[in-house]
Amino acid sequence: MDNKVTLVEVGPRDGLQNESSIVDTDVKFEFIKLLHDAGLNVIEITSFVRPDKIPQMKDASDLYNMVVDNIDLSNLRTPCLVPNLKGLETAMKLNVSEIAIFTATSNTFNIKNINATVDESFQRLSLVSDKAREVSLDIRGYLSTVFGCPYEGIVKKEQVIKTIDKLLKLGVYEVSLGDTIGVANPEQVRSLILEIKKNFDLSKMAMHFHDTEGMALANIYASYEEGIRVFDSSAAGLGGCPYAKGATGNVATDDIVNLFHKIGVNTGVDQDKLHKASSYILNHLKKNSPSKYFNAREGRKA
Amino acid sequence: MDNKVTLVEVGPRDGLQNESSIVDTDVKFEFIKLLHDAGLNVIEITSFVRPDKIPQMKDASDLYNMVVDNIDLSNLRTPCLVPNLKGLETAMKLNVSEIAIFTATSNTFNIKNINATVDESFQRLSLVSDKAREVSLDIRGYLSTVFGCPYEGIVKKEQVIKTIDKLLKLGVYEVSLGDTIGVANPEQVRSLILEIKKNFDLSKMAMHFHDTEGMALANIYASYEEGIRVFDSSAAGLGGCPYAKGATGNVATDDIVNLFHKIGVNTGVDQDKLHKASSYILNHLKKNSPSKYFNAREGRKA
Repeated sequence: MDNKVTLVEVGPRDGLQNESSIVDTDVKFEFIKLLHDAGLNVIEITSFVRPDKIPQMKDASDLYNMVVDNIDLSNLRTPCLVPNLKGLETAMKLNVSEIAIFTATSNTFNIKNINATVDESFQRLSLVSDKAREVSLDIRGYLSTVFGCPYEGIVKKEQVIKTIDKLLKLGVYEVSLGDTIGVANPEQVRSLILEIKKNFDLSKMAMHFHDTEGMALANIYASYEEGIRVFDSSAAGLGGCPYAKGATGNVATDDIVNLFHKIGVNTGVDQDKLHKASSYILNHLKKNSPSKYFNAREGRKA
Repeated sequence: MDNKVTLVEVGPRDGLQNESSIVDTDVKFEFIKLLHDAGLNVIEITSFVRPDKIPQMKDASDLYNMVVDNIDLSNLRTPCLVPNLKGLETAMKLNVSEIAIFTATSNTFNIKNINATVDESFQRLSLVSDKAREVSLDIRGYLSTVFGCPYEGIVKKEQVIKTIDKLLKLGVYEVSLGDTIGVANPEQVRSLILEIKKNFDLSKMAMHFHDTEGMALANIYASYEEGIRVFDSSAAGLGGCPYAKGATGNVATDDIVNLFHKIGVNTGVDQDKLHKASSYILNHLKKNSPSKYFNAREGRKA
């Protein structure tokens, strides 16, 4: 097995979307630039959504153009989240090379989140993916509530396998399996991956863990042992958990890089430069990081 | 393998010792009572040390007597930390049934901590253990800096094995292997345990992880998979890290219980009652918990 993982940095989109105060486009750009300087080569830049619904993303087109104009894209993939055909049109106008689409394993979650059952969401997604494939856009697929749903509880493995299959059939090159409410445990992770291996090519799977209960690194280590080589994470641990006030969301890139480097796995990331990127955005947000590694580093300086 | 672990609760001693404000004896007692009510049956009560050196422990005798007088000890083990013969005399006067002794794998750490090299510390310890065995006291042994020393860096496995052997020869019934500065990783943990298995009976080993870099649960899970069945932890995650200001120390009992219950391992602990014990001491200390599970639970209530 290859002693190397790919990290998909979701801080600028998934992380900042959770922030109530609007962050300047210049600051977002500088954050992205610092992340890329640190060696992160897949960065979710923004999402093309209704600005009245998600004001934090209203500068999506400007930010994307700023990235294209100022950063060498030869070594940077820049997926943008697209919820529907309208978002796809924006992405196409901007010549975005890669989009991400999303759904969940559970009906209740999908109905509350996007007002559609799982089946209805796939009808909508197929309109997007058909058109995206026509113009040769790469498509990444997010699957939420894989390890548990805030409304329906544990999700059956068969249901997870079925929705992964549907996403792959839309033509996504990778499915990111999300522990949306951060309740997964390493045994559950191992057991699901074993089931996935029976049905799909594991190299098409990524893991997206939340650290809500502090178990993200244990889950990531178990996933790595089972053969997963792509992980989503968010610099400084940006992003919260809407189902537990004040609790942490996305696992911090800082923590995941520390884990992998310690166990001798290459991430391509420079930890000093990553610390700089995380510090930069935390200073702008006037926030502390939920990343224990980030805080221990700060503490050792003090 | 038995689907069950033993937790050694170190909050009242190791945790509170790190607090600068002196906690009332009544509060310490109530905390211990709540922990025992929650199902924790091994609780490190206090340490018999010089009150001018560690003022937080100056009520050690009073607290121990309060515990003996008011809690049924038939289902509670109450180890007390003893650094020297003077501490042992106090323990014997109080009829303490179990003591804990401590040293480290590295000379520099030991010299800074107890002003003795590793070898010198064993000379001192043997005076304590000889006398303790004479009066049939059970002895637990703590070994610090097993996975890294703040002064000497990585500690060689041979050195760890050698000091474990010396501790066992003093007659300790269990060696608690401490990741004092919280730098261990799951591969290192697995590798050390494999070496330990070659030399000793694994059932005599406990793990004592710090969550300084957020990796404690990953390390605990790896330890469990390798056969370790005894873990030290601290309710609410009490206790800091003297080598990284503001960083977290002892892994939280709340987090470790959540991990084990999720993977179907019995701890004997009632999570609601444990939450009550942690909340009680946090309220008294006017502190937040570094435990992500504790905070997520609080957030879900909000």
